[in-house]
Amino acid sequence: MKSEAKTEGRYAYSLERAMHEPSRLSILTSLAAHPEGLVFADLKTLTKLTDGNLSRQIQILQADGLIAVEKSFVKNRPQTRCSLTGEGRKRFLDYIAALEQVVRDAGRVATHPHGRVATTG
Amino acid sequence: MKSEAKTEGRYAYSLERAMHEPSRLSILTSLAAHPEGLVFADLKTLTKLTDGNLSRQIQILQADGLIAVEKSFVKNRPQTRCSLTGEGRKRFLDYIAALEQVVRDAGRVATHPHGRVATTG
Repeated sequence: MKSEAKTEGRYAYSLERAMHEPSRLSILTSLAAHPEGLVFADLKTLTKLTDGNLSRQIQILQADGLIAVEKSFVKNRPQTRCSLTGEGRKRFLDYIAALEQVVRDAGRVATHPHGRVATTG
Repeated sequence: MKSEAKTEGRYAYSLERAMHEPSRLSILTSLAAHPEGLVFADLKTLTKLTDGNLSRQIQILQADGLIAVEKSFVKNRPQTRCSLTGEGRKRFLDYIAALEQVVRDAGRVATHPHGRVATTG
């Protein structure tokens, strides 16, 4: 059964791995929702990552130009504040557009309630 | 500036790694759109994966119970046909629901056209 043409790359998606990794996706979405930036403790709460993992992922995202990290002292205590860079914002929006395409494509499965039908070879 | 409570795990997503990997996501979305299953050559066209990578990812998905693989002979040539299993269909729909949540959450960034605003400590 050939019900439609098999277009080359129809289900190939451009998903930047720097953003696709679940921990980093969680950090980026948190920051996207907070354009004023987030301090480390708040990021930790929102993402439920451990201190070590959050620190590591922040370093990766910063090195890749996706987020900016400001270190300062507040009441004599060090504070780390992260925010999306302009480039990060742009790349994240492109990434989300690709995810939206995945979700749209996958939406078709919901119209086939029985999953598999008889194969026709 | 605390404009809202920082709810624990608000941006923590449950994204099964077996399905989140881009090549496998591409295969699963192709199969979701083709409940009758797809032969290897068509899967290769739709996902634009190499033979080696496609074979490897199919094995991983099969071992994880997400897809079924039928081998047969058509006009004396071996044919491999893949399809989502019932379990795979269910887990894929759960995964897609999590992706939809990411897209919804990220949609908020689009309402802040300038990305970063002044930090307030």
